[in-house]
Amino acid sequence: MIKFRTEGDSLGTMEVPANAYYGIQSLRARNNFGITGYKLSSTFIKSMAMVKKATSLMNLEAGVIEKDVAEAMICASEEIIDGKFHDQFITDVIQGGAGTSMNMNINEVIANRANELMGGKLGKYEFVTPNDHVNYGQSTNDVIPTSGKLTVIQLCESLLSELEDLKESLYEKGAEFDHVIKMGRTHLQDAIPIRLGQEFKAYARPIRRDIKRIKETLEDFYFVNMGATAVGTGLNADTTYVKDIAAKLGEVTGMDFKQSTDLVDGTRNLDGFVWLSSALKVCAVNLSKMSNDLRLMASGPRAGFFEINLPQKQPGSSIMPGKVNPVIPEVMNQVSFQIFGNDLTITKAAEAGQLELNVFEPVLFFNLFQSIQILKNGVQTLNHNCIKGITPNVARTEEVVKNSIGIITAINPHVGYKNAAEVAKESLKTGKTVRELTIEKGLLTNEELDVILDVYNMTNPGISGKELMKKN
Amino acid sequence: MIKFRTEGDSLGTMEVPANAYYGIQSLRARNNFGITGYKLSSTFIKSMAMVKKATSLMNLEAGVIEKDVAEAMICASEEIIDGKFHDQFITDVIQGGAGTSMNMNINEVIANRANELMGGKLGKYEFVTPNDHVNYGQSTNDVIPTSGKLTVIQLCESLLSELEDLKESLYEKGAEFDHVIKMGRTHLQDAIPIRLGQEFKAYARPIRRDIKRIKETLEDFYFVNMGATAVGTGLNADTTYVKDIAAKLGEVTGMDFKQSTDLVDGTRNLDGFVWLSSALKVCAVNLSKMSNDLRLMASGPRAGFFEINLPQKQPGSSIMPGKVNPVIPEVMNQVSFQIFGNDLTITKAAEAGQLELNVFEPVLFFNLFQSIQILKNGVQTLNHNCIKGITPNVARTEEVVKNSIGIITAINPHVGYKNAAEVAKESLKTGKTVRELTIEKGLLTNEELDVILDVYNMTNPGISGKELMKKN
Amino acid sequence: MIKFRTEGDSLGTMEVPANAYYGIQSLRARNNFGITGYKLSSTFIKSMAMVKKATSLMNLEAGVIEKDVAEAMICASEEIIDGKFHDQFITDVIQGGAGTSMNMNINEVIANRANELMGGKLGKYEFVTPNDHVNYGQSTNDVIPTSGKLTVIQLCESLLSELEDLKESLYEKGAEFDHVIKMGRTHLQDAIPIRLGQEFKAYARPIRRDIKRIKETLEDFYFVNMGATAVGTGLNADTTYVKDIAAKLGEVTGMDFKQSTDLVDGTRNLDGFVWLSSALKVCAVNLSKMSNDLRLMASGPRAGFFEINLPQKQPGSSIMPGKVNPVIPEVMNQVSFQIFGNDLTITKAAEAGQLELNVFEPVLFFNLFQSIQILKNGVQTLNHNCIKGITPNVARTEEVVKNSIGIITAINPHVGYKNAAEVAKESLKTGKTVRELTIEKGLLTNEELDVILDVYNMTNPGISGKELMKKN
Amino acid sequence: MIKFRTEGDSLGTMEVPANAYYGIQSLRARNNFGITGYKLSSTFIKSMAMVKKATSLMNLEAGVIEKDVAEAMICASEEIIDGKFHDQFITDVIQGGAGTSMNMNINEVIANRANELMGGKLGKYEFVTPNDHVNYGQSTNDVIPTSGKLTVIQLCESLLSELEDLKESLYEKGAEFDHVIKMGRTHLQDAIPIRLGQEFKAYARPIRRDIKRIKETLEDFYFVNMGATAVGTGLNADTTYVKDIAAKLGEVTGMDFKQSTDLVDGTRNLDGFVWLSSALKVCAVNLSKMSNDLRLMASGPRAGFFEINLPQKQPGSSIMPGKVNPVIPEVMNQVSFQIFGNDLTITKAAEAGQLELNVFEPVLFFNLFQSIQILKNGVQTLNHNCIKGITPNVARTEEVVKNSIGIITAINPHVGYKNAAEVAKESLKTGKTVRELTIEKGLLTNEELDVILDVYNMTNPGISGKELMKKN
Repeated sequence: MIKFRTEGDSLGTMEVPANAYYGIQSLRARNNFGITGYKLSSTFIKSMAMVKKATSLMNLEAGVIEKDVAEAMICASEEIIDGKFHDQFITDVIQGGAGTSMNMNINEVIANRANELMGGKLGKYEFVTPNDHVNYGQSTNDVIPTSGKLTVIQLCESLLSELEDLKESLYEKGAEFDHVIKMGRTHLQDAIPIRLGQEFKAYARPIRRDIKRIKETLEDFYFVNMGATAVGTGLNADTTYVKDIAAKLGEVTGMDFKQSTDLVDGTRNLDGFVWLSSALKVCAVNLSKMSNDLRLMASGPRAGFFEINLPQKQPGSSIMPGKVNPVIPEVMNQVSFQIFGNDLTITKAAEAGQLELNVFEPVLFFNLFQSIQILKNGVQTLNHNCIKGITPNVARTEEVVKNSIGIITAINPHVGYKNAAEVAKESLKTGKTVRELTIEKGLLTNEELDVILDVYNMTNPGISGKELMKKN
Repeated sequence: MIKFRTEGDSLGTMEVPANAYYGIQSLRARNNFGITGYKLSSTFIKSMAMVKKATSLMNLEAGVIEKDVAEAMICASEEIIDGKFHDQFITDVIQGGAGTSMNMNINEVIANRANELMGGKLGKYEFVTPNDHVNYGQSTNDVIPTSGKLTVIQLCESLLSELEDLKESLYEKGAEFDHVIKMGRTHLQDAIPIRLGQEFKAYARPIRRDIKRIKETLEDFYFVNMGATAVGTGLNADTTYVKDIAAKLGEVTGMDFKQSTDLVDGTRNLDGFVWLSSALKVCAVNLSKMSNDLRLMASGPRAGFFEINLPQKQPGSSIMPGKVNPVIPEVMNQVSFQIFGNDLTITKAAEAGQLELNVFEPVLFFNLFQSIQILKNGVQTLNHNCIKGITPNVARTEEVVKNSIGIITAINPHVGYKNAAEVAKESLKTGKTVRELTIEKGLLTNEELDVILDVYNMTNPGISGKELMKKN
Repeated sequence: MIKFRTEGDSLGTMEVPANAYYGIQSLRARNNFGITGYKLSSTFIKSMAMVKKATSLMNLEAGVIEKDVAEAMICASEEIIDGKFHDQFITDVIQGGAGTSMNMNINEVIANRANELMGGKLGKYEFVTPNDHVNYGQSTNDVIPTSGKLTVIQLCESLLSELEDLKESLYEKGAEFDHVIKMGRTHLQDAIPIRLGQEFKAYARPIRRDIKRIKETLEDFYFVNMGATAVGTGLNADTTYVKDIAAKLGEVTGMDFKQSTDLVDGTRNLDGFVWLSSALKVCAVNLSKMSNDLRLMASGPRAGFFEINLPQKQPGSSIMPGKVNPVIPEVMNQVSFQIFGNDLTITKAAEAGQLELNVFEPVLFFNLFQSIQILKNGVQTLNHNCIKGITPNVARTEEVVKNSIGIITAINPHVGYKNAAEVAKESLKTGKTVRELTIEKGLLTNEELDVILDVYNMTNPGISGKELMKKN
Repeated sequence: MIKFRTEGDSLGTMEVPANAYYGIQSLRARNNFGITGYKLSSTFIKSMAMVKKATSLMNLEAGVIEKDVAEAMICASEEIIDGKFHDQFITDVIQGGAGTSMNMNINEVIANRANELMGGKLGKYEFVTPNDHVNYGQSTNDVIPTSGKLTVIQLCESLLSELEDLKESLYEKGAEFDHVIKMGRTHLQDAIPIRLGQEFKAYARPIRRDIKRIKETLEDFYFVNMGATAVGTGLNADTTYVKDIAAKLGEVTGMDFKQSTDLVDGTRNLDGFVWLSSALKVCAVNLSKMSNDLRLMASGPRAGFFEINLPQKQPGSSIMPGKVNPVIPEVMNQVSFQIFGNDLTITKAAEAGQLELNVFEPVLFFNLFQSIQILKNGVQTLNHNCIKGITPNVARTEEVVKNSIGIITAINPHVGYKNAAEVAKESLKTGKTVRELTIEKGLLTNEELDVILDVYNMTNPGISGKELMKKN
């Protein structure tokens, strides 16, 4: 049987489980916001704890919190950073505005634990209280956005590393497939020859830009509004504390944090988060496009393009034997779609801020953290379970190029667009090759065509057979 | 040289072109809102004029406006309905909240024209004033949403007619292609045979649902909030007028208008518009998917699926002779993308309403009217310039089916999933046909396979060769 | 130490935990798709089990599965329906296309459990195999969409019930606040008086429409594509089975299921899901707007509108004593934002379907199920923790109306717009009341104003003081 | 009566108006794509002409086009750059894929005009042909994206200039309002004092970031894929031309253009456009938030916040005399909503590219150009018609602060959160001021409160009355 203790706040009293490190306000929040059933992520809890450790250190230095209290709070914060007490964080990811309940949850857990360390009892707050000690000189409105930024920076680190790996794999495939000639397609119609390697390099480059973009958007995340307290004016924070808290957070985290130049701005505006989400969205655009292409190029085997083979990761069908589906690109597509939706939610949340505060951070954080993580996971499986194992069907792609009509384009400068169009039309109707017809019509000789229709040359800038033409 | 007259309002005076039928408030609006450069559409202007005609008729009946004034206003309204004075509507489609300026623009044009008809001078308002006469018993807040609904109903009429035509064409193609056997594909991988006709019927059915959905969403548009005036309480509108104005609008327009049961609700909430936009969006989903499929099936000619031919509507390339692109499905895709974006704007605008009024109607209307019109135009060109002229490449699709591995699925129930998967794998590796290998491995006889591998039968429910299996 | 068994499929072998009811394909999927970390919901797992129970019953009736095997599979399905083995569903909610892995997961769990019931060993499949028995006559492509529909229907039942309750609460508040006079506002500017009760009724009505819309969109969900197998042609399904499987599912679930008229359409098109999501989105528009209004009306206490009091659910600030925030409307806003984003993802997923199948169901289902559930949870807390406890600040709202300038509107028809505008301007500048100035300027008498400025009358249609005016 | 001439292409012949400079392919396009009714913008037409001028110059230098032909084409291009022949551009902004028709339209106009200059007849193409001369060494697939980038750069120049001006105005208002004390609000609830100047500075800063972001996204636009021709391989372009065409375009335009490092990438990927659109979206988020705040702060006059006055730009209501609405922020909101929708369309269009080409540029360009232009126009009217003329209601805001409960926060560190919360609660209930109650309860003295409750000090970091506290 669960035992309870009674706790009170300005609105009344409640029964809190006797052995809980959280307190009455966390409990109220849990009851008020049973929305998604998802709890705060471990990375975010640790980030809040790092912020709290820094504030305790700083308030100690500023002389506004007594030494034993500060040390107990620091110790409790470190335990949370080490992964303890995470089950005491009981609020839903989507909750009342600004994340007051997240902040009060950690205030209560640290207060109770610190109190316990100092010889007090859970729920009694004899030595350390959530508001007057743990939250000293702070507000939800600086603690939560700062913890959010800290979380983002950590999550993006692994994302960027996965993106780097993917980019490398794509460049490697670009080199590996450099001599695989295939038909290039525009409007999904046969166009002119291209090398499969050129295509894979062209998948690598947008990822390179994505990495650059994400990195650039992260620059703002090193500016935090600690010291702002409620609205950016720093009310109730000690001036020493205000001056040095960002640097202190830097020490605690090993990251180069600075204070926002304008704390009022830093407290109310969330455009930096939207900017990062936009960078993730653009990356998702590139990855979804690439996944679509991979699925197209691997379509078949008999009724499709069948230019490449994706690694077989699982039987593809519960009814059709031997079928293997492009499940990895498919999951990458879906991750992208999720990120598109998350970006909309994030945009809406940022736009909805009013006056001194944007209270819609909880839903913004939920979506942004998710976007970063699923993008990382998607990229990882795309790279390791798909890209790295792709092989080309060279015989097939070369055969198709040879029989294609699109190579007429190379003949175009030598015979004029109208003549060339005639040849193309007739080739389509009769099934004769472009070469055959061009000779038949006396437009060019066999020898000339040997030069002009060299398909590898066609994939590099310059008029095919230009020298020949000049000679004539 | 343009001559000017001086007009005044509660904020001061301005110089208005002497021969303008609009007045000072329209001019202020034009100066304040130079946003898109697009002016109000003809259909919307006429809709406002119909509303104004109805209100004048009703105020005359209620005895609150004198006969000669009312008749002059009715006459001016009818001229606008007949297409006159549309160049006098000078406000941008995106403008200040609620469309006050649209309403004042028509109030001013009618006032000036009615005044003129009664022997007055432009800009003098001797007999008829914009606010006290043309706008009597009304507010922007009932006139504009009502005009918007009237516009929507008219625009949707042609949209629905085009959708009906498209649906018919698709059913016709469904019948025409009923015997064209081709490979069905799931995950873009060869699956099992299907008939091209079955596919086209399956394009028709969602359009059928779209028509039903759009019609259902339109039901709400026959409930108008005329009589609500500013906030839905009907302040300053005569009680007779309030009671009968919706019916009067019905008379004027020939449509079955009714008054909203709750005028406060009818004045502030725009969910009905979002619902229609959602129906258009779902339709765009279906049309974009269909266009993607058409482009895929027509891909080639040598390096693609090449199952169908789209009508050739224009040379496809400025550089590649003989290339013809699927431009019509491509434009349908783009129309769909536009509608997706418009739907987001509409949703955001509707959500942003506050208290007694949603002032964001101008941008909502601009997007909604555009969505309806471009959807209509897109569907029209899709139907007439593409669908109706599609032809199948029967020889090609049948050849592909015959050589496909996917037909192994039909063998599955007769030999078990594992054996079947082996055959499939070996077929892919060796190039041998499924039939050959099944016989080679002694799994089934040639005669049994004749029954089981009848591809037409495979496209209808029932285990292929079921009788055979039972016999054994 | 965990023990393992070896299982094989057409791609090779893997080590599966020896006591697992899932098999090799579930395991492959878990390894391939570590995306969100979220597992399939209980409702969805049960829905799949109901489908599998129906198919076993039907295959038994059709005589294509032997009695003892069918009965073991039915028994296993019922155990899952009763909540057993849910920990054996190990695939991520975002996974490879079409949900093949979800289907194979339940096929494996049922096969292993049925096998066990028949005396076999886990992983041996001596009597029952996942593909040849549990999946007989089915495909992922009919099982998964059907399970999705079944899930949606169940989830929406509680949503609709919560919406009904909310609607009732709003109507009750509408009645309770019927006599509370307050300023109506348009463009956030003081307009004319309205009754707080009128406003709450106007919140109830869109919810009423939302209920209607959601119900209408659900109609399509009773049409399922069971019997379609892979592409809608029903290949490999017994004809008896195809004919009766929908009715059988109806028996198993107690819901009135019918078979889609066109199984090809039913297998590839997901527009019905987008339509439901759109209805949820429109509902979210209404709820977000309402929440914004509640937060505005409760703003203050000294520097805001302060017209109503929301129930106090938790202390509002970690730093500002006594502050209580509108956390419940805030969480409702955030739920709405989440639903907007989810709708975009759902739309994108539906649009991305290709040819015979839309493989993007996993991400679509994840978002749609979430939208329904968080909407239900949001509405529940909004109703019980906010709406039901709202109280008005009558003294304040009446005082504001008395001193307002907006009541000039009622005087308008009696003195003309221009005179009225003058009074309004002067009132704003001097601070004198509208009444004082109207008398001062000799426009109307005190007695006339008593009639005209009766604020309760102003909130009902009809010109205030109309009789009076006529008399004059 | 209009006269016609007959023109032919590979698909047949058509009657073209005899005096038209466009030709058969433009006409086909106009007939195929009657979607929006909007034509190409002047800036875009000029951009295409600059590209064509550069290609003619370059082909002349490379020696692949004869001098007289090249000079005639250059002359024709310059005429278009000077604004001539813009009425000859007859294709819809939403059109078939890739903008082939836009490119053919300018090819035809230049060909006809150059031909005419050389003594030929319209429609005869005796000396200059659209494909073999004007389009030499080019493809729609390099001409159109390059023209799009050129257009974007030009349009953004004025946008950035308007944003700079807005930023300056906001900083100026920040300085002007530096001493206006008002209540800060979080969660729309009274929080603690802030200075109006601090708020306006906090509006300026995100605009500053927006400018930086937009500029950064523009960097990519100076890399063009001229020389890529159809798929990025440069087929049919002379090698000299390929090497120098970007620099030549730089000369023609006076902008620092470079060639994309990877022309295949440069031809198929549109992520750079999405990135710019994202920057515009983030800017719209900031502007919409600011507009919402302005409307809130200006709400009233009697029933709202009434902290600031917006310049009166037009009478606000057709029915309520004296009402003036915040029409300028309202139009800014709507511009923002439009940009949100446009961004979705742009994202979707970019994601939908396939293989060697993204054919959805027409709809992407339409939306992107519109976003830039309406943002520019919106910012301009916001700055000049609103921000610059804002005045504060100092007496009102100071009175509200004095009577507020939120100032209790400053007392908090001196008496503890619990005591402070009691005072706050009692103040709300009884109407007594915080000061009165704090003294009554013996918590602090009048003299201490003089120091602690100095509201100006409260708006700067530091514990109010800290020295005092230390003294005690």
